[in-house]
Amino acid sequence: MINLVILGAGNVATHLARAFSHAEDIKLKQVYNHKPESLIPFKHITATTTDLNQLEKADVYLIVLKDDVISEVAGLLENNDALILHTSGSVPLKALNKFKNHGVFYPVQTFSKKKPVNFREIPICLEANTAENLEFLKGLAEKISNKTYEIDSEQRKALHLAAVFVNNFTNHLYRLGAEICKNNEIPFEILKPLIRETVDKLESLTPREAQTGPALRDDKQTISRHLAMLEPKHQELYKILTQSIQELNGKKL
Amino acid sequence: MINLVILGAGNVATHLARAFSHAEDIKLKQVYNHKPESLIPFKHITATTTDLNQLEKADVYLIVLKDDVISEVAGLLENNDALILHTSGSVPLKALNKFKNHGVFYPVQTFSKKKPVNFREIPICLEANTAENLEFLKGLAEKISNKTYEIDSEQRKALHLAAVFVNNFTNHLYRLGAEICKNNEIPFEILKPLIRETVDKLESLTPREAQTGPALRDDKQTISRHLAMLEPKHQELYKILTQSIQELNGKKL
Repeated sequence: MINLVILGAGNVATHLARAFSHAEDIKLKQVYNHKPESLIPFKHITATTTDLNQLEKADVYLIVLKDDVISEVAGLLENNDALILHTSGSVPLKALNKFKNHGVFYPVQTFSKKKPVNFREIPICLEANTAENLEFLKGLAEKISNKTYEIDSEQRKALHLAAVFVNNFTNHLYRLGAEICKNNEIPFEILKPLIRETVDKLESLTPREAQTGPALRDDKQTISRHLAMLEPKHQELYKILTQSIQELNGKKL
Repeated sequence: MINLVILGAGNVATHLARAFSHAEDIKLKQVYNHKPESLIPFKHITATTTDLNQLEKADVYLIVLKDDVISEVAGLLENNDALILHTSGSVPLKALNKFKNHGVFYPVQTFSKKKPVNFREIPICLEANTAENLEFLKGLAEKISNKTYEIDSEQRKALHLAAVFVNNFTNHLYRLGAEICKNNEIPFEILKPLIRETVDKLESLTPREAQTGPALRDDKQTISRHLAMLEPKHQELYKILTQSIQELNGKKL
């Protein structure tokens, strides 16, 4: 039985607490957060505390807090033999190096509190200060996910950057598409099968092979017609994306 | 029974010919293309021809050709009482106005020859020169799809532009994400559940509500770290996308 304490009560902490509370051989002993009201949703799962001096004894402490408070909270934790982990994509392993046993447990997913997720399908990227801790961490991650990867701090930084492109930036393009639809009284629904197919194609084609459209064809007529239809604030974005597609495909600009 | 002739043999024509050849009350009489070798895959479905003077008599002629040859081929077609349609997102209805009965049949999807699609789920945007033709066109579209929409030429131009954002540009961001992974020896697989969830969220949240990330939080530290990691040619794109997210959310730049 692995005894676990989670520090944090945001979206990621909520989903991790749910997943671990249903996992075999894991005892979620406690959830900590400095705001008592944020702990309310956890009270039916386990014990809670707002006081770092009242943490239960455990084998693993999972710090699931914003990047800029990880070091601060880690600084307040007592050093003992427990394994101390954070879950951030961009904070290096060494932020926890005051602890004898430390590691990173980074689930690559976007979480909303309301929307349930299937944790078994979520890739978890692992790093630890020793081979033994890494082995232990892998066992822990496999309690809730089928997909674990060993990823070092440099790789994790790159992965986090790639995630910004495929998640944050992509979602913003959906927003611009939805805005164009709204301005022209077109239901955004019409675009959803296209959006899904764009993703489905990744199963059989590389994104390079799947690329289509006026930028790739260098269809100057369509490109200028599109630019003329866009608000000035979106023209620059259209141009830069078009240039970027053409550069990667070796077209002249 | 509606007699149909398809002009074209590309990706869209291939999928339309397949769908119509299985549809009830439709007889796909012939497929035309100027290149004989492109017609080979159609020979087991129906008759084919490379000669516009040898077109079969039909109720509907569906021009499924590249935008810049639609007018040219339409100019060579004999005018009669048949309904003449094109399938382009960006060519206006009036490109076919030499015909007594004409319309647009625009399926909003990205097609690859090899990948089968379920046409019943593909939205088809319809426009015609008379109310009667529109009614007939709707009946025709419903033979292969459950999702038909009446969309005029101006709206269709806007829809095509929105599709470039959510399909072509999004796919390019997947490509950049895949490139960052490759350069850092990270399997691109790790990002796929995140990509899928970004799309799944559109079922319960608007893209505006779903937006997350360093640009939205105005997390300057992460933004500068990301810029430092990117090749110069991708820095500008990262900056413009970040600015665009911040502008739409009313942040100061």
